[in-house]
Amino acid sequence: MSVNKIDECIQKLLPKLREWRRHFHQYPEVGWTEIYTTYVITQELKKLDGTVVYGEELIQSNARQGVPDENVLEKAEIKAEELQVPAEFIQQTKGGYTGALIQLEGKEEGPHVCYRVDIDALPITETSADSHFPNKENFASAFRGEMHACAHDGHITLGLGLATFLSEHPEEWNGTVTIIFQPAEEGSRGAKAIVANGWLDNVDYFMSGHIGITDMKAGTIAATAAKFLATTKFDVIFTGISSHAGAKPEEGGNALLAAAAAAVHSYGISRHSKGDTRINIGKLNAGSGRNVVADFAKIIGETRGGSTEVNQYMMNEVERMIKASALMYGVESWIEYTGEGMAADCDSEWQHWIASALEKSSLVEHVEPSKEVGASEDATVMINHVQRKGGKATYMLFGTELAAGHHHPSFDYEEAVFGPALAAFIYPLVNNVWREEK
Amino acid sequence: MSVNKIDECIQKLLPKLREWRRHFHQYPEVGWTEIYTTYVITQELKKLDGTVVYGEELIQSNARQGVPDENVLEKAEIKAEELQVPAEFIQQTKGGYTGALIQLEGKEEGPHVCYRVDIDALPITETSADSHFPNKENFASAFRGEMHACAHDGHITLGLGLATFLSEHPEEWNGTVTIIFQPAEEGSRGAKAIVANGWLDNVDYFMSGHIGITDMKAGTIAATAAKFLATTKFDVIFTGISSHAGAKPEEGGNALLAAAAAAVHSYGISRHSKGDTRINIGKLNAGSGRNVVADFAKIIGETRGGSTEVNQYMMNEVERMIKASALMYGVESWIEYTGEGMAADCDSEWQHWIASALEKSSLVEHVEPSKEVGASEDATVMINHVQRKGGKATYMLFGTELAAGHHHPSFDYEEAVFGPALAAFIYPLVNNVWREEK
Amino acid sequence: MSVNKIDECIQKLLPKLREWRRHFHQYPEVGWTEIYTTYVITQELKKLDGTVVYGEELIQSNARQGVPDENVLEKAEIKAEELQVPAEFIQQTKGGYTGALIQLEGKEEGPHVCYRVDIDALPITETSADSHFPNKENFASAFRGEMHACAHDGHITLGLGLATFLSEHPEEWNGTVTIIFQPAEEGSRGAKAIVANGWLDNVDYFMSGHIGITDMKAGTIAATAAKFLATTKFDVIFTGISSHAGAKPEEGGNALLAAAAAAVHSYGISRHSKGDTRINIGKLNAGSGRNVVADFAKIIGETRGGSTEVNQYMMNEVERMIKASALMYGVESWIEYTGEGMAADCDSEWQHWIASALEKSSLVEHVEPSKEVGASEDATVMINHVQRKGGKATYMLFGTELAAGHHHPSFDYEEAVFGPALAAFIYPLVNNVWREEK
Amino acid sequence: MSVNKIDECIQKLLPKLREWRRHFHQYPEVGWTEIYTTYVITQELKKLDGTVVYGEELIQSNARQGVPDENVLEKAEIKAEELQVPAEFIQQTKGGYTGALIQLEGKEEGPHVCYRVDIDALPITETSADSHFPNKENFASAFRGEMHACAHDGHITLGLGLATFLSEHPEEWNGTVTIIFQPAEEGSRGAKAIVANGWLDNVDYFMSGHIGITDMKAGTIAATAAKFLATTKFDVIFTGISSHAGAKPEEGGNALLAAAAAAVHSYGISRHSKGDTRINIGKLNAGSGRNVVADFAKIIGETRGGSTEVNQYMMNEVERMIKASALMYGVESWIEYTGEGMAADCDSEWQHWIASALEKSSLVEHVEPSKEVGASEDATVMINHVQRKGGKATYMLFGTELAAGHHHPSFDYEEAVFGPALAAFIYPLVNNVWREEK
Repeated sequence: MSVNKIDECIQKLLPKLREWRRHFHQYPEVGWTEIYTTYVITQELKKLDGTVVYGEELIQSNARQGVPDENVLEKAEIKAEELQVPAEFIQQTKGGYTGALIQLEGKEEGPHVCYRVDIDALPITETSADSHFPNKENFASAFRGEMHACAHDGHITLGLGLATFLSEHPEEWNGTVTIIFQPAEEGSRGAKAIVANGWLDNVDYFMSGHIGITDMKAGTIAATAAKFLATTKFDVIFTGISSHAGAKPEEGGNALLAAAAAAVHSYGISRHSKGDTRINIGKLNAGSGRNVVADFAKIIGETRGGSTEVNQYMMNEVERMIKASALMYGVESWIEYTGEGMAADCDSEWQHWIASALEKSSLVEHVEPSKEVGASEDATVMINHVQRKGGKATYMLFGTELAAGHHHPSFDYEEAVFGPALAAFIYPLVNNVWREEK
Repeated sequence: MSVNKIDECIQKLLPKLREWRRHFHQYPEVGWTEIYTTYVITQELKKLDGTVVYGEELIQSNARQGVPDENVLEKAEIKAEELQVPAEFIQQTKGGYTGALIQLEGKEEGPHVCYRVDIDALPITETSADSHFPNKENFASAFRGEMHACAHDGHITLGLGLATFLSEHPEEWNGTVTIIFQPAEEGSRGAKAIVANGWLDNVDYFMSGHIGITDMKAGTIAATAAKFLATTKFDVIFTGISSHAGAKPEEGGNALLAAAAAAVHSYGISRHSKGDTRINIGKLNAGSGRNVVADFAKIIGETRGGSTEVNQYMMNEVERMIKASALMYGVESWIEYTGEGMAADCDSEWQHWIASALEKSSLVEHVEPSKEVGASEDATVMINHVQRKGGKATYMLFGTELAAGHHHPSFDYEEAVFGPALAAFIYPLVNNVWREEK
Repeated sequence: MSVNKIDECIQKLLPKLREWRRHFHQYPEVGWTEIYTTYVITQELKKLDGTVVYGEELIQSNARQGVPDENVLEKAEIKAEELQVPAEFIQQTKGGYTGALIQLEGKEEGPHVCYRVDIDALPITETSADSHFPNKENFASAFRGEMHACAHDGHITLGLGLATFLSEHPEEWNGTVTIIFQPAEEGSRGAKAIVANGWLDNVDYFMSGHIGITDMKAGTIAATAAKFLATTKFDVIFTGISSHAGAKPEEGGNALLAAAAAAVHSYGISRHSKGDTRINIGKLNAGSGRNVVADFAKIIGETRGGSTEVNQYMMNEVERMIKASALMYGVESWIEYTGEGMAADCDSEWQHWIASALEKSSLVEHVEPSKEVGASEDATVMINHVQRKGGKATYMLFGTELAAGHHHPSFDYEEAVFGPALAAFIYPLVNNVWREEK
Repeated sequence: MSVNKIDECIQKLLPKLREWRRHFHQYPEVGWTEIYTTYVITQELKKLDGTVVYGEELIQSNARQGVPDENVLEKAEIKAEELQVPAEFIQQTKGGYTGALIQLEGKEEGPHVCYRVDIDALPITETSADSHFPNKENFASAFRGEMHACAHDGHITLGLGLATFLSEHPEEWNGTVTIIFQPAEEGSRGAKAIVANGWLDNVDYFMSGHIGITDMKAGTIAATAAKFLATTKFDVIFTGISSHAGAKPEEGGNALLAAAAAAVHSYGISRHSKGDTRINIGKLNAGSGRNVVADFAKIIGETRGGSTEVNQYMMNEVERMIKASALMYGVESWIEYTGEGMAADCDSEWQHWIASALEKSSLVEHVEPSKEVGASEDATVMINHVQRKGGKATYMLFGTELAAGHHHPSFDYEEAVFGPALAAFIYPLVNNVWREEK
């Protein structure tokens, strides 16, 4: 197939991509509750010529991190029922077994190439502003309090578009392709459970990527990403003693104040000369009644670091501060770790491979060798695993203007990103860019 | 009826009182959601010879304070349905129209005497300790997260016992008696809505009281209470800007930290030389996701003061600190006032009246003229209203040992308090203690 | 001597009292550095007919509390030299041996009556406002950073006035009188060292008092004071690790932040239902250079409580919070106790004794039986000691309007207070009010 | 002169360098008080063949930043007197006119080459540990509370060594050389005042450098430095209302708590995705007496940023937080800016120039093209000025092991650094590395 033909195929797919994207945008589901999302994905994949995997075959139960509470999982189940997901499918994916993958075979023998996209949404309420594109075009989130505010709706779409192209044109490529639709990327929770079931063990080349992140224009692709932050996710519970706030304030052990102190002081952990640091206490819930000294508090937080060492420094500091905050108010504290993201380095070969492959595509205007992410990515768990096993991995960035930053209630990107991004996934494979290796 | 006869009547009621108390203890409902509680009360009252009032006739809609959110009210409705409260009754009391009263007539014309008991529970999870009396005797709260931890189960019981006695022995007393079963005492929210409907307008003598509070033994009664704290109840909402905590932390406006700062600093408001002060932030809920800078926070709090002036000082300080906390983190804040309690002075005549009336009862060993409360009480709204209209009011304290302080998960009192407490309500009326007045 | 004669004598003394007061006001010296003040006092006392005591005979070295640092003591020495205090006198009083007493004998045998006034100033810079009376009359503090902002200049004056009267009119009274000019009252530091040398062991009647405090007018006297707060004085040192704030911030252990956290959180210690509480961190000094993580911090503070028990609760909380603050920032902390004040009760007999004695004086318009202090007083150490040994003690309050509150840079009182206050000291003795005892 | 000869000359100087270093180490003087240091420097320079400049000829009065208080300046004067600095010299340099420069002429006409070293010490007390090299060798700081803990003693030494070599070997180099001995580098305060007097206006090539900073070994030189942090230095004064902490706590406006809140919260300013950030509150001094609500507080701090924009973000946040902290406690605040450091980029030509020049020296083992500083440097003011005028500038780093980090009480470096560092200053000039330019 000539280069022009591939570009044409991609362009023919674009209306379908847009449709998928808008559908997924309407039904955002947070990590480990993506039952409906997974159902729609698998329905699409089953139309293609490949093997579709999901449920416990995909996800190893014990390697899952940060699975939400029973009642959150149950609500997701009820929501899926209301959206007419068949009972059998719910049975297989409920309780935190979401996500799917498809395996396809090319014309001839060849390397095992793995792509990974992520599928979960965020616990953010989408803006109701008229100027917000999903409002204008009538595809805003149907679920108050959940939103695709990190472009994973677009990532699912790219995964489906890629699978469709590869299934329809097996003569254009060699080897085996696995496309993973990973759940629970937010909070760096889901990748480990897929790796644990061996799905990344024999991968020769691994590609993933993200829409947005840096300030490149639509049409521009970064072949590799740099500066992934290592991260630790944690929950803390403080338990104190309740008492009547008017009559016996001195008998209380104030868990709310301990949690508030932990929050305030942990942001003040010293910066580190050896790399970026981050701290976030994303949630704090404390207390029961207005006139009762709060005997319970929970905080949910994360640290990040430019390296594993720097992230560890942050987490050591947080641990000591939580202990100190509990002591400050005479209460008890427990820390639970719920997720962990690694630093990672893309193999530099991709800078050349991707640039040369995309040279031919009219859909991509410019390829940057590398751009900094400055955030954490659960894909790093897969990248590190593939590299340890001898494979080569990259994480691309797909340029687009943003209406507002990632995780913002007004987040939105240009749908014009789909063409170049899909090209960036397809061309290296079709061009067999790694043929000179070995 | 001789004194001995009255004591006998009370003693005959005691098994019933215990039964009532344990029943109400099992079904605690927090303020404005006491549908089932109100239903059981009215069922009992309707067996008696008096006029029973509840719903909008009792409660003035606009004068209600601190009515909870729609979804809390709805859950209460569902709970009431599950407890088989008839649909019609739910219809009349749902959405924050709980509570009831009964009016009874004595043998002859006479003064209008009003009693008030309170009926709401607290958002506290009862201890599961085996040594806790309600666990031993198998009548602990059936609702996780709600508990009668301030003896209102006993107060309802006293109200029903009093109504029963007065209804069965109309020949023993003169005048009109109103017994009010007030909802939403916690947070000083319900009294105003009953006063607003005029139920306290023509009251000559007003009596209320509380089990526990001071360290008197069972058998001892304080004829009056002193040192009610004035109080203001408030909610605060902080709204900031969400952003990706790893990728764009600097773009966030952290509402969680603003709320935490408001909590930490407001406890540090300077003490006041002119009287007691209290501050409590009873609840703090903030944030949505672990890796999102929190754009929303809510705190629920209260101030108290030994006088209205001192309470106002506290509230002025809190207001300034909330504004400063919002400024600290570049977010917005709104304060809403949800309840207000007043200082109050019992009329000193009651010290003599109650002491002399109870001299005759074998159930009461000792009467203290006055004891300090050191807390707030919604009854003060009624006390002040009655006094402004020319009536005389008191608030008694009923001695008992406590297993743990009020609002503590292990709170419990001696059921032996019921005999003396009921006597303290009945004897002044039967003895017509105010006959020398006017 | 007739009553009129006593009043006349007092009135004749008033110009001298005013002169003394203004002189002492100009030369304020903080606790344990009152060398010049002590020198002037002893010079005046030596003119009288009594035994003057000072230096180590008065002050027991080991029982002194809160003696300042060597360099503060040295500066005081230099200041005294500049004010021409003779070298020998400096030798006897320097290093924290200030204060004086005089013992006088009356006409006949009689009880041992002890008076106590305090002589130290505060580390406050006097206002430069023109409207401030000492500025208008040109007797403001000559020492920047030190000020008689708690009326001890007036107390010294009353002590000298009393000594003068008693020395000039020995025929008017019986028994032995000791007048103690106590150093280092602020911070409750000096009384213990005088008690330790036995000077209060054989006292039958003890009188002390304070100008101002309550809102009584000039001419009004409170015969006794109530509600002295128990208090604990403490210093805390935090030691951390300094590091370059730009290049290696993560290597620091921030003592400044630990001290700041200790300050902020300790004000938030829960109020106590059993009595008043106070907390003050009066000074915080931390750090060395702008771009150095601070490795040192010192805070100086105090707790108070309505009872010894409540004060102990405060101090226990502070101790835990200091430990927690150090842990929060990974630094070390040490607490040193530097003073302790007790609760005390005046003997109620004085209410009658003083009221009846002063009935005859035209200088006093009204005697209140008792007024609340709501603060701490080092005299309580003497009051408790005298009472334990079988004596009777009181602490009077002398009414005056105040230009601004105690310890305020604009603090000032009416000099009209001297007449009534001196009468309140003299009349009970001259009238032998305790003659009916025993 | 052959390369071997230059190395020999340098080696012959080494004992003298060690001697100078140890002398300056013993007499550390903080910024703008380096009277004795300047005196010793000028005494040495005057032995050489050049023009020596100091006092107001060097320093423009109005362009000085962060000059300390009068009493600090006076103490420095007294210290200089005690160290026998002649009165006339004190007269010329006291009050903040420290520092010196020397201008020398080479064999032939040539470019104007400027070197800059810094001379001030830090307000840190040197460790008394026996293992500390200056203690072992008996040259520790003679001034408690001041210490050369940032290697400026070594920098002065290098400046003197350089001047000595150039003066003794004018035949070895061409053009004009200015060697600036800059005062008050710490806090980025002194450079501006020298630039303002025009001393950098006609400089073609500018060299400066620092001992330590990165983890290179002795013998290794970094030809250029990257990642200077922009910085802002500020002082804040909080003024509140003093009151008696026991008797009228509610009347106080607590400046100490406002300053403590500002410190705690400002460390919690959000990290920035676009570059490094730093915040330090280096000093906090608040309050006057233990039982007085503190009416005064001062904090001394700095922000830094990886770029001018990021530093500005930090300072904007600090400003808002200071305002909020004042509001929190009802006090007033004022911010004063006392210094400002810029970001800077070394001209990349130096990487080649220095590497090639030093290839020939046996004293230098290895030249790194560039190393990151991650801190602020007052030299950036000169670097930017020179570059704006068309000159080329670099800032080298001189490798050494460190006993402890910069600004640490145990800071120490290897004296072996002097040989390579002096070579790094001399070789580019002698080799006329810039000859190919223009």
